[in-house]
Amino acid sequence: MKKATESPGVREVSVIRRGHSAPERDCVAVEEPMEVRVNGASFAVIMRTPGADRDLAAGFLLAEDVIHSADEIGTIEYCADVTDEGRDNTINVTVTGAAVDRLGSRLGERRQVMMTASCGLCGRRTIESLQARVAAVKGEWTVSAEVIASLPDRLRSTQAVFESTGGLHAAGLFDRHGTLQLSAEDVGRHNAVDKIVGRTLLAGTHPLDQSILLVSGRTSFELVQKALLAGIPIIAAVSAPSSLAIGLAAEAGITLCGFVRGSNFNIYSHQSRIGS
Amino acid sequence: MKKATESPGVREVSVIRRGHSAPERDCVAVEEPMEVRVNGASFAVIMRTPGADRDLAAGFLLAEDVIHSADEIGTIEYCADVTDEGRDNTINVTVTGAAVDRLGSRLGERRQVMMTASCGLCGRRTIESLQARVAAVKGEWTVSAEVIASLPDRLRSTQAVFESTGGLHAAGLFDRHGTLQLSAEDVGRHNAVDKIVGRTLLAGTHPLDQSILLVSGRTSFELVQKALLAGIPIIAAVSAPSSLAIGLAAEAGITLCGFVRGSNFNIYSHQSRIGS
Repeated sequence: MKKATESPGVREVSVIRRGHSAPERDCVAVEEPMEVRVNGASFAVIMRTPGADRDLAAGFLLAEDVIHSADEIGTIEYCADVTDEGRDNTINVTVTGAAVDRLGSRLGERRQVMMTASCGLCGRRTIESLQARVAAVKGEWTVSAEVIASLPDRLRSTQAVFESTGGLHAAGLFDRHGTLQLSAEDVGRHNAVDKIVGRTLLAGTHPLDQSILLVSGRTSFELVQKALLAGIPIIAAVSAPSSLAIGLAAEAGITLCGFVRGSNFNIYSHQSRIGS
Repeated sequence: MKKATESPGVREVSVIRRGHSAPERDCVAVEEPMEVRVNGASFAVIMRTPGADRDLAAGFLLAEDVIHSADEIGTIEYCADVTDEGRDNTINVTVTGAAVDRLGSRLGERRQVMMTASCGLCGRRTIESLQARVAAVKGEWTVSAEVIASLPDRLRSTQAVFESTGGLHAAGLFDRHGTLQLSAEDVGRHNAVDKIVGRTLLAGTHPLDQSILLVSGRTSFELVQKALLAGIPIIAAVSAPSSLAIGLAAEAGITLCGFVRGSNFNIYSHQSRIGS
């Protein structure tokens, strides 16, 4: 494994510890803006941790209802004409077919948006249309409670950057036996999920109806929505869900677990998928 | 103190604990969309925890560069014509003077945005303009390291909802002696800061150049920007800062402390304000 300090997601900074006068070196998680262009037009700016930018762009455009499948993506490339102190912070996605119409519609909704590290629904939905695209997920299988309880430790063992900075959210995709399929880290927890969803979308393995999504933090409405759009039937989170996250999970047929810590956890919806 | 379960920020849900078959009652943090209208025009939708909505709207519009002072605010009222299952989820802010021009400019930037619980910069800035409004804060005073270390415990003692749900971010404003001036809780940590900034803006006590801001989680770029716009010279956070948060704090003259836990913490910028 590459050392965390060599990752593009980590930067060394100077820090003063309480009670010390001499500065020391320490690692922090990198946060950088990434401008997402679609067919050359500026679509959004996301605050994210660099790395897996193509996955992030693909997952983000799925969540934003611009693309519905990988077939609608042509290329995803950094814009060579943009120099941002030498950093790759502008990426262009070409889309085809019906996605072109959806793009025009989205842009027409005046969604030139700037998103921060934890923002995933920006610029599209009004209150009235929040739940318009909800259709229940499939996947009528079960996973043992023991596997659910084991997921945080399994994910943590892959979190190189978090271990060195304490500043990143992580997400992991697992099968029903608790085997880690892939993971992602980001200063924004929704970005970590977008990276996972985007990578699997580009790999052609959607819907993810045989997978479990684990997130390292809390569960909000938008995280459940992202899982729903990817077809993921089970979400497990280390921390608490919000009321709206529970409501959407219940409506969408998603099993939502929270406070997965030690050997315990809570089930907030569709508990039939959790075995004894 | 009002019981947490009676707060509009908390809702009772049914939960299954691992190993139990009968559902139990538990409390979760409420997440609801709030549409912010300005002079009657839809401006943004924020996912937030109900409560202190007027403060949130005012702080949000300051951060969004629509208003520069409380003088530019006329009224802040729930829209009586909107029924969202009886909930107060639409609020209208009337603005006057130069804010009217700024509003037109912001709306012209196509910023009909939908913001999630942790999103604070949505819809406005491009990469190029990210740091355009940065001017260094004032406030050349010092606070003892002992006071900084004591802030998390002082804030925690006020967090009624968090204690019952585990699902809320908190922010607190303190003076240099560690006395809590006010606090706020929300599913979105940037909302908690907007609530504090908005309440003090409406109370006429800006700039907050004699105050310390404590946040219960991590520090991102946008949180530092909100502190900067409110004139707060010291930020302390229980968890890690991002690289961009440190960069902005350094540029803006803000003292940024992180990992404030037990008796220890780190100083990432402008350590001259922290005494021994």
